[in-house]
Amino acid sequence: MAQHRYLLPEDRIPAHWYNIAADLPSMPPPPLNPGTGQPLGPEALAGIFPMSLIEQEVSTDRYIAIPDPVREIYAMWRPTPMYRALGLEKALGTTCKIFYKYEGVSPAGSHKPNTSVPQAYYNAQAGIKRLTTETGAGQWGSSLSFACNLFDIECKVFMVRVSYDSKPYRRMMMETWGGECVASPSEETNAGRAILAEHPDSPGSLGIAISEAVEQAAMNDDTNYALGSVLNHVLLHQTVVGEEAKEQMEMAGAYPDVVIGCVGGGSNFGGLAFPFLQDKIAGKDIRIVAVEPASCPTLTRGTYGYDFGDTAQTTPLLPMHSLGHDFIPPSIHSGGLRYHGMAPLVSHVVHTGLVEATAHGQVECFAEAVRFARVEGIIPAPEPSHAIRQVVVEVERAREEGVEKTILFNLCGHGHFDMAAYADFLSGNMKDLAVDEGELARATEVLAAMPGIA
Amino acid sequence: MAQHRYLLPEDRIPAHWYNIAADLPSMPPPPLNPGTGQPLGPEALAGIFPMSLIEQEVSTDRYIAIPDPVREIYAMWRPTPMYRALGLEKALGTTCKIFYKYEGVSPAGSHKPNTSVPQAYYNAQAGIKRLTTETGAGQWGSSLSFACNLFDIECKVFMVRVSYDSKPYRRMMMETWGGECVASPSEETNAGRAILAEHPDSPGSLGIAISEAVEQAAMNDDTNYALGSVLNHVLLHQTVVGEEAKEQMEMAGAYPDVVIGCVGGGSNFGGLAFPFLQDKIAGKDIRIVAVEPASCPTLTRGTYGYDFGDTAQTTPLLPMHSLGHDFIPPSIHSGGLRYHGMAPLVSHVVHTGLVEATAHGQVECFAEAVRFARVEGIIPAPEPSHAIRQVVVEVERAREEGVEKTILFNLCGHGHFDMAAYADFLSGNMKDLAVDEGELARATEVLAAMPGIA
Repeated sequence: MAQHRYLLPEDRIPAHWYNIAADLPSMPPPPLNPGTGQPLGPEALAGIFPMSLIEQEVSTDRYIAIPDPVREIYAMWRPTPMYRALGLEKALGTTCKIFYKYEGVSPAGSHKPNTSVPQAYYNAQAGIKRLTTETGAGQWGSSLSFACNLFDIECKVFMVRVSYDSKPYRRMMMETWGGECVASPSEETNAGRAILAEHPDSPGSLGIAISEAVEQAAMNDDTNYALGSVLNHVLLHQTVVGEEAKEQMEMAGAYPDVVIGCVGGGSNFGGLAFPFLQDKIAGKDIRIVAVEPASCPTLTRGTYGYDFGDTAQTTPLLPMHSLGHDFIPPSIHSGGLRYHGMAPLVSHVVHTGLVEATAHGQVECFAEAVRFARVEGIIPAPEPSHAIRQVVVEVERAREEGVEKTILFNLCGHGHFDMAAYADFLSGNMKDLAVDEGELARATEVLAAMPGIA
Repeated sequence: MAQHRYLLPEDRIPAHWYNIAADLPSMPPPPLNPGTGQPLGPEALAGIFPMSLIEQEVSTDRYIAIPDPVREIYAMWRPTPMYRALGLEKALGTTCKIFYKYEGVSPAGSHKPNTSVPQAYYNAQAGIKRLTTETGAGQWGSSLSFACNLFDIECKVFMVRVSYDSKPYRRMMMETWGGECVASPSEETNAGRAILAEHPDSPGSLGIAISEAVEQAAMNDDTNYALGSVLNHVLLHQTVVGEEAKEQMEMAGAYPDVVIGCVGGGSNFGGLAFPFLQDKIAGKDIRIVAVEPASCPTLTRGTYGYDFGDTAQTTPLLPMHSLGHDFIPPSIHSGGLRYHGMAPLVSHVVHTGLVEATAHGQVECFAEAVRFARVEGIIPAPEPSHAIRQVVVEVERAREEGVEKTILFNLCGHGHFDMAAYADFLSGNMKDLAVDEGELARATEVLAAMPGIA
């Protein structure tokens, strides 16, 4: 009988995170101080992040040791399984081999605890009593609530309004783990009040929620801010995904021709892809594909330049693909992918041609998610359904080309809190939500007014 | 670093189910034909079950081989992990060792696919095109939908009204896997219409839903019925849980002094407990405890005698603890435990003193579920929170007695579809729902009028 699952024992939890910065042929441009336009020193972030995380943010060491208390908590669910998608292969009638790393086995149901746990740990070490954060679909907010509770830190989550309303169970999950969750934009911050004054019915966005969370962290000495994606240290923590997957591919006696991940801020993608990108940089013949929603096409239709990470312009300027910091994406079900920007590291490797980017509409993605659920059992979160859609595109291409490929993708979370989205699809009512072209053009102008990348 | 998880490789999926009937010191009384009062022959069930399952129902073979196609599907999630509850031990400040088998990793999130897959398989082998069933909390209905889809069988689920209304996501899960789900009592059956005529606002019960599902199966040649608990073959399929757990306890270099499971119909309990009960019968010093909700106290306050498995009196008479076939339990959150009867095998081992039974209220159980979620990460389904509560009772008792115990329980499912119940608890609004004493007394009378057990 063919093997479905590749499991690693507990002692194979990676001992180090892998830092792609050590191996990139060229470094991404530095973040800038928006006031001076000059490169930002690490000390500028000290008001909202502990120094240990800031050091990771700028480190060029290839491997960074994972602290024992973090590995002990990882052991609650790591190493995660890698699956051979035998059911999907059969359904597609393909001789391609399809593998997926499954991060949905974590307590919060996604890859997010890989970074929420070390972030809570380092903040606790630094004496911080409270963390604030943003969340889209709620995966990140629940993961940070889970982690904060383990280190006796309070957790305050600003949840994008549209997701807050459509995913009440995610909020209850945060509360079960002891976190506090409010809808964003909220009346609790200057940033939130300003948005509500102009747009009382604002569906919110990750950019707005970040502004609110950063504002509360900056104004309180015992409070720091935690980000669920985008920054270098966040992607660093996620590399345990790819490190394990490389070992599991070896167990399977295979190596991927194509590695695929969905991208919103870039963390699940970077987590799986960067350890394989290391091999590509070293000469391995491998394609790596980032898949985003057509309704929030940061990499495929955005501008590569400097932009704020948040709507209220409180963050440093980050070198990234962006749709403009005040861009509000349509209310698609993949709340975790509704971000105007992109991780600078992911933007850089796309910009330099190491990684491909593509975009798919939510209807074609949900059709694949339902097929996947029926043949593989696991109900995917809406976000990784974008990766599954791309797997099918790759299989079709392989058939046309008459080749057999080995494909690996990151199934970064389950869809147990997204069943209303499935109901929307199954009822036939789901629509692809077009980006407003006027908004896009305006966003391009916003970007044109920002400092350029040399 | 102490070990959290005990994992078995894929080739350790059990090759056989374990049949406790082979080792019981005395056999349970036979089911009776309600018309004649005589023991029921296997052929009486042939209208709604395939012969292969009927043979398992009456078998006294110790081991029954698991068909390869079933083991291949088991490999999607089996072997399941066994955990050492290091976080809970620390929170309780105990030197007792606490272990739990975790069945929430299955696609449907509980132990139920362990039997839905073989049931769908054997029915498909017999040429059946459609299965009907009942479901309480929805764990079973979604598991059967999942399994039927894999064998190209239609699936029709009658879901207890109170759960249908409070757990819409479970219904959407069934539909994602291609099943059809209606609220019970429904207008689609004679049994449902009769109940609605008398009680238009009936919250439903498993007993009513069974009546509806059996009726549709009995009236259509290409349709069979599938039961998620109670019957011998269902408990048989669940023994993979205990078989794996025994091997994992060996890996941990330990053996349980106490084995604990929650009981509704008896399947997750029997699945974990029976392979250990085999050891107890062979002389091992071990306690086995079944935990039920105080609001549906079948084992602790019911009568041991013959009763119908369903409300409309369409099933054979089963020898079991019962609250009476027309008993409607209060609408507690543990929908999976709201059953008036009990598996004849579980009733028999409780009646003969091999197994202890106890009952807990839902508020104390949810308090433990929240603590468990905070220290172990996994959010338990409401049903196994009863087992967790009993673990804490055992730990307290061990402390009083000055002994160290090794405790094993079955965490038979996650609570991702039960977050509204957690919100109810966290808001402080949850209440213990007392059994109506008048209803209980009337149930005792119902039982007194049935054939007695010699």
